[in-house]
Amino acid sequence: MPEPVFILVRPQMGENIGGAARAMLNFGLDRMRLVEPRDEWPNPRAVALASGAGRILDNAGLFETVADAIGDCTHVLATTARVRGLTKPVLTPEQAMAEARAATDAGGRVGILFGPERAGLENEDVARASAIVTVPVNPGFFSLNLAQCVLLMAYEWQRHGMAPAAPAELDRATATEIEKLGDHFEERLGTAGFFFPEARAPGMKLAIRNMLSRLALTRADVQIFHGMLRQLTRQKAAPAASDEPET
Amino acid sequence: MPEPVFILVRPQMGENIGGAARAMLNFGLDRMRLVEPRDEWPNPRAVALASGAGRILDNAGLFETVADAIGDCTHVLATTARVRGLTKPVLTPEQAMAEARAATDAGGRVGILFGPERAGLENEDVARASAIVTVPVNPGFFSLNLAQCVLLMAYEWQRHGMAPAAPAELDRATATEIEKLGDHFEERLGTAGFFFPEARAPGMKLAIRNMLSRLALTRADVQIFHGMLRQLTRQKAAPAASDEPET
Repeated sequence: MPEPVFILVRPQMGENIGGAARAMLNFGLDRMRLVEPRDEWPNPRAVALASGAGRILDNAGLFETVADAIGDCTHVLATTARVRGLTKPVLTPEQAMAEARAATDAGGRVGILFGPERAGLENEDVARASAIVTVPVNPGFFSLNLAQCVLLMAYEWQRHGMAPAAPAELDRATATEIEKLGDHFEERLGTAGFFFPEARAPGMKLAIRNMLSRLALTRADVQIFHGMLRQLTRQKAAPAASDEPET
Repeated sequence: MPEPVFILVRPQMGENIGGAARAMLNFGLDRMRLVEPRDEWPNPRAVALASGAGRILDNAGLFETVADAIGDCTHVLATTARVRGLTKPVLTPEQAMAEARAATDAGGRVGILFGPERAGLENEDVARASAIVTVPVNPGFFSLNLAQCVLLMAYEWQRHGMAPAAPAELDRATATEIEKLGDHFEERLGTAGFFFPEARAPGMKLAIRNMLSRLALTRADVQIFHGMLRQLTRQKAAPAASDEPET
């Protein structure tokens, strides 16, 4: 399955390379490239920190220049907090990954550049990208580290690939089950003299039906309520006014 | 401005509390509560790691139980990777923060529970939430740490508060400027004998106009092209066939 390539440009700390690998793999991404890492490569500290995501490092390509690393990419995005004198579209991670998905679906290969820990990407790197990606952080406080930047981009990639978001379905009770539960409430409450005065009974019953329908009850919830109703009236030693089976 | 409260339940490492504070502040969130942190509080390691986000720790409320910590919350969400025997809606971070925004806009107070580093939230904690939030990670690899979970939730909160996403506008050239640039191309290329054979000239000219319109050129790009055209024909010592001002 095609996926974007995450390109770490001149990363300094091996720990951060390992952390970036783990961040990627959380969201199923495993193609990494490195341009001029500061320290030796392979880097034992990167391996230690990648725990479980080591194969990303094993397969990571090592390149001497950004131009080499992006050579086979049809779309290149540069993550940077600052745009310095370059005219380039600035995208949010959301927009960037929507574009990346579209480009990938169309058969393209997307490369995403991440700069070194402190300095960030140089203008020479950014100039090779078609667009800039900037995480919209608090203007007064920016402290995202390399692995966190990678994490947010990987998360957005995954988010755009998910099926249209729909809350996971619970085992919801059917309307008939809710209706029968309402009947049970009315019956037990009626026996207990709850609907008083009689003139207000219809409104009170309607309010209960309305509430039960609004609660999004599951089948298990319904069973719990049935059991509670039975138990409550039994404890009060009220005469069994229902033919509900006792369990 | 109302915002959700991030509640760290039984956090173990002070470093992670500090990291969570920094992650929050990146996205403008600064309300943290702590339930039974393992170590002393205030925690010097938390303060050291929070660098720049220390005021979040200074203002963090300390609570003995989850019930106390969520006491004034109208909506409670529990972040957990595993749902263990509890019937509860499971939301993505996106869905959860859309709900949190809606609840906050309606005057509610949202609390979001984060479990301890390894064990995660207990069922007793989760049972107090109205819904579960699960980051949809790679089923075969989950390694999000506490600060990363906090980061993703804070990011989603911020994302849902942003104005509808529109790529930042560049200083795009007007159609007239593009038209004049096309004229300049045709003139210089015509002088250079580019449009040959003559029968193909109309198609060639159309292709150039089409390309120039598609490129989303800025005003600066247009000026660069004008300058290039002038310079290229000057270098070839072609007779000046244009009244374009030389610069």
